[in-house]
Formats: sequence, structure tokens, C-alpha cells
Amino acid sequence: MGYDLTLRDLHDLAEGAAVLGTGGGGDPYIGRLLVEREMAAGRRVHIIDAGELPDGALVLPSSMMGAPTVFVEKLPSGGGNVAAFRALEEHLGRRAHAVMPTECGGLNSMIPLMLGAQLGLPVVDADGMGRAFPELQMQTFGVLGVSGSPMAIASDHGDVCVITAGDNKRMEQLARALTVQMGGASYISDYPMDSAEVRRTSVHGTLSLCRDIGRTLREARAAHADPFDALTAMLAGTLYSLGVVLFRGKVTDVERRTVDGFARGRAVLRAIDSDDVLELTFQNEHLVARRDGRVLAIVPDLICTLATETGAPVPTESLAYGQRLTVYAISTPPIMRTPDALACFGPAGFGLTDPYVPLEELLPAART
Amino acid sequence: MGYDLTLRDLHDLAEGAAVLGTGGGGDPYIGRLLVEREMAAGRRVHIIDAGELPDGALVLPSSMMGAPTVFVEKLPSGGGNVAAFRALEEHLGRRAHAVMPTECGGLNSMIPLMLGAQLGLPVVDADGMGRAFPELQMQTFGVLGVSGSPMAIASDHGDVCVITAGDNKRMEQLARALTVQMGGASYISDYPMDSAEVRRTSVHGTLSLCRDIGRTLREARAAHADPFDALTAMLAGTLYSLGVVLFRGKVTDVERRTVDGFARGRAVLRAIDSDDVLELTFQNEHLVARRDGRVLAIVPDLICTLATETGAPVPTESLAYGQRLTVYAISTPPIMRTPDALACFGPAGFGLTDPYVPLEELLPAART
Repeated sequence: MGYDLTLRDLHDLAEGAAVLGTGGGGDPYIGRLLVEREMAAGRRVHIIDAGELPDGALVLPSSMMGAPTVFVEKLPSGGGNVAAFRALEEHLGRRAHAVMPTECGGLNSMIPLMLGAQLGLPVVDADGMGRAFPELQMQTFGVLGVSGSPMAIASDHGDVCVITAGDNKRMEQLARALTVQMGGASYISDYPMDSAEVRRTSVHGTLSLCRDIGRTLREARAAHADPFDALTAMLAGTLYSLGVVLFRGKVTDVERRTVDGFARGRAVLRAIDSDDVLELTFQNEHLVARRDGRVLAIVPDLICTLATETGAPVPTESLAYGQRLTVYAISTPPIMRTPDALACFGPAGFGLTDPYVPLEELLPAART
Repeated sequence: MGYDLTLRDLHDLAEGAAVLGTGGGGDPYIGRLLVEREMAAGRRVHIIDAGELPDGALVLPSSMMGAPTVFVEKLPSGGGNVAAFRALEEHLGRRAHAVMPTECGGLNSMIPLMLGAQLGLPVVDADGMGRAFPELQMQTFGVLGVSGSPMAIASDHGDVCVITAGDNKRMEQLARALTVQMGGASYISDYPMDSAEVRRTSVHGTLSLCRDIGRTLREARAAHADPFDALTAMLAGTLYSLGVVLFRGKVTDVERRTVDGFARGRAVLRAIDSDDVLELTFQNEHLVARRDGRVLAIVPDLICTLATETGAPVPTESLAYGQRLTVYAISTPPIMRTPDALACFGPAGFGLTDPYVPLEELLPAART
């Protein structure tokens, strides 16, 4: 059932989105400020379930593209998102009924909220991954047969392009090249869908899930309860079912480069009370967590770096020597674990040679 | 007055286009084969003057984009040019009355001929430079106020993008990034114009000029006459007015890299009967010719490398040690020498610090 987002919901949603951002996705804080500006101007953010969409309605996702490291230095102004959305409507010759996220993790949880407020359109409570991923073809939409293009891409400086690509991977390559030319960050609208396609191909309820994760962390802090225990209890009742602490330690090493429009690198954590070492590898998002060379969790399962004291999510661009972090893993929903899904955004989709093993099967190894 | 191109005209035009390609522009030979295929299938190439266009008609230029070094290894199939042209028509919501070249030098003299034959549209006898240039903003069209975008760009593999850029230089950057992703070569349709804009902003009669240059070289060879003398006599009666031999020698050194979608480098020639050395610098096309550090000719005046025996043009991608070449310079038409034009495609447009000095003023230095 549809609801209007309150300011407190928005803060909770932004924090939950940073958790599901798994170290990447861009800091939602920046996007939250843009949504707050819209709400302060009296515009509302109305969230609806996919089931509430009228049959045959056009839905256009909205997001930003680029390396999270770029967003830190070049704050999005929010001008290009309307341009991209309108360019795609114009190309399709139809008006959209609603906007939706492609990616509920990180900054891209906020971009469709801003756009919905700006245009007076509802925002569908669903996305294409229930987390964050670095590349445009990494979407349940595409895995389940929706074409990512035609898509529109716009800068904050008046450049707009409409791409029609041979396939979704080619779309990613073309849009990535444009994004680099646009200064490393762009606004896009891709995967145009009708209501039935949204209902069939998306991960449902993920905006509300972000809000609930943020609320759980906030309430645990207020009650001086352990935020990780609270999170695990809350996730048990969701599509994700399993959340678990993998490791606690201090950051001892971080390598980070912005290459070809991505933030790539690795981080090393050492346990406080032993010589155990955990290594995280990331491409915008954390891809794999290894202890002594053994995989403890691997993409598409979620690997989150959270502050040990508060449970507050720490993105890869903020990782720094000496931080006390808890590495917390969450199992992905079943729609993300089919063979087609794993071929697209499992380990092989990132060029990793490790096979995908579900988090719950790896847990015994994590505990030895 | 309109005329249908004969096969002999086509051969002459391709050779003349290679001369005006000034070492770059891509070898017209490849494009000539594509046009020949259309003519062999019974389709005609009809050339018209800009003055013959009906008022208010839409004219869409057509060309390829990329490094000439790429065209040598990856022959264009000619599929993407229709896709780009149709995508731009669709975006504009109008049908085009005619096609035209943006660049009569090199391969791009042939692409609109092929398209005109494929679509049954006349080809306007005019272009935006009367030679070849490496970047899309380097057009008299843009210098005289025409926007390069919206433009369409397509690969041979089903990818099509429509770009609307803030300015023509941004359009170049965005299209170049896409071209690199498309394998280093793409088909484009840019600078959509109406008849009045074509008449006001283009260099007129350049396709026929290419044909006449080719015919002059062919007839000189048949008559065992000096091809350079014949060329100089013929050019004296055209917009270009001045053609002159700058240097004769053998190639002693060539440096050539394909960087950021361009063929960049330099070539050194040594005179046969003295120690004189001429150095050519190129970015796809020859930009400047220097003897002992003194500039003998500089862009936008044309610097052509022609075989000493036959006058046959030799593109930079075919330059090789030991070749006997004649460096032949041609002065550009007045429309190419205005302050605005020089700011766009004079030495400063290529990052050269040398000032532009017209070829005819440099000639006394060349002869000492």
C-alpha cells in the first residue's frame, strides 16, 4: 500500500541503503540532501508497491552512473536526472506513470526519490538487485529478459544521449564511456518497462527494506542494544533471511584506484585479539571476503563494512587505516541466485575464478 | 547542375579525395569499393549543387568517425551508415531531402555517395572543410553557427546513439568515446541543416573538385606529363587557387601511434640530392611541415604526401622507410581562414604554438 515518505523515513532509508550498498553505490548522504531539498520545498515522495501500478503503465527507472569516488568530490546537482528521464520519454513517445530505482543500495536509492518529488510521480518500491552493483547489465530485469535500452544518459551540463545497444553489456560499455567523458558521473534512465515486466522481473519491497534496516539500527542505538543482533533479528523476517557477523577487526591496509570509471581495490582488516586477517576485494562494491585465503562470502551475497561501535555503514571511499569495522554478510534473495543471475552478477560476472557458494553453506568455514 | 557519377568519375573522385585527405581521412579506396558495389547493383549516385536544393529542405551529412589506421584492419561494411541516418531522421521527426559530406577528403568523400545510392537521395556537392580534419567540431558549419547535434552514431553491430551536446566540442568528445567503444570506427550523421544553412556555411563544389583533381592526375600520367605541374595549373582556376611543391625526398623515419582514437605521429623526409630534412607532424592529417625548424606550411592549408613518380597520394598509415615522396601544399579557400575558422581548426585548434601564416606568405622562405 502506498505511503508518503516522512523525513525520518528518509533518514532511515538512506542509512539502510548504505548498508545494502556493500561499501559501494555511492554515499546516500549526498542524495539524501537532494531529496530533503525537494521535501523542504513542499514536494512529496510517494512510494507504491509494484502491485499498485495500473496494467500497461510505463515505468522508467532512474539512477546515477559513475565511480563513487567521483561523487565525493563532484556533488551531483540533480539537474541531469530530469533531462535523462524526459529524453527517454520523448524517444519512446510516451509519458511514464512512475519512476523506480534500478539499485536500492547506496546513492541510487535516493535519485528516484528526488525525481519522483520533482515530477510528482510515484516511486515503485522495488529494484533490479536489492543491493548495489557496479555495471548496468547487472540487473534482474535483464537476466529475466528486459532490454536495458533504449536508455538515456545526461550530464549536469546540458549533454543528453539516447543509446540503443545490441545487448545490455554493450549498453554498459557505451554508457560507461560517455560517463567518463561527462566527468565520471552521469544521470541515466534505462530498462523502460511496463507494469507486468516490473512485477515479473524486480526485487520487491527493497525501498521499504532499506527504511526498515535504517530504523532497526537507529532504534538499537537508542536502546543501547547491539546493532548487529538487531539487524540479524530483523532480516530473518525478510526475503534476505540471513544476516551474520563475519569478522571484527581494524583496517590495516587499503588500496584504491579509480580506473575506467570504477573504484577498484582491496582492504585488509586484522582482528583485535588475534592475528587473523580478512581481505576484501571490491569493484565499487565488496565482491569477496577471504580469511587466510578461504572465501567467507562472495558476490552476489552482500558483504557490508559497518562501524563496530554503531553499525553505521562505511563505504570503500571512506576506508582508512585504524578504523574498527565489523564485516557483516547478508544472503541475497532467491531471484538473485538462479544460474542466469549468477552468470551475470555472480563471481564470473566480475572475472573472479572462485565459484559461487551461498553464504549459508560457507558459514561453518567462517566459524572455524 | 546535377549529374550522375560514372564509374570513371568515381575513380577520379576517390583519388582526388585522397589528395585532399592530406595524409589522413582514411583511404578512399575502401569506400570506393562500397560505392562500386551499389553502382554494380544498378543504383545511381546523383550529385547536385547546393543551389539546386529546394528551400527549407532537410539535409543530413553522413560520414565515418575513427582512426584511419583502424579502417585498414577493420573494413567498413556500410551497414551502420543507414542506421545513423535513419536514427537522426527519426529523432528530428522529419525525412531528409539529400545527403552530403562533412569532409570531402579521404574515405569520407565516399560514405555519402554510398548512402545516397542506398537510399535513392541526391548528394550535395559541398562539404564543411574542403579537405579532411580529425575532429567533429572542425567544420565551417559550426564556425558559422550551425549546431553539430543532435547527431546520431552507429556501429556495424546494431548499436545506435543519438547525442545532443552542449556544444560541438563536447559532441566530439562524447562521439569519440563511443567510437572507441565501437571498435575504433563508427558511422555518424551530424550537423543537420536546412538548404539555406547548407548554402551559407559549406565549402561549395568540393566533390567535383576531387573528381577534377583525380582526372588531372590520370590525364597527366596518360600524357607522360608532370602530375604536379598539371595539378598546379588545374588548381589555379579553383577556390584553392595555389598548389605548390614544397619538398622532394625519401622517407627516413616514421613514428605512428593510435591514441585516444586518433593516428598521431611524425614523419621525416631527407632530400635526394642534399642534406635537407623535412619533418611532418600529423593527427590523422598532416598539420605542419618544417624544414630545419622553419614552418613551410601549416594547417588549415593542405599538406599532401604524393608519390614522386605518379602523384598518387600516400596516406600516413602507409608511410614507410625509403618511399620517394613529394610534399605538395595547397592553400585553403578564404572561408577556412577567418579568425573564427582559425580558432577552430588553425594551429591553435591542434594545440600547436606556431601562428597561422598563409601558404603564399611562407613560400619565399620555402624557396631559400
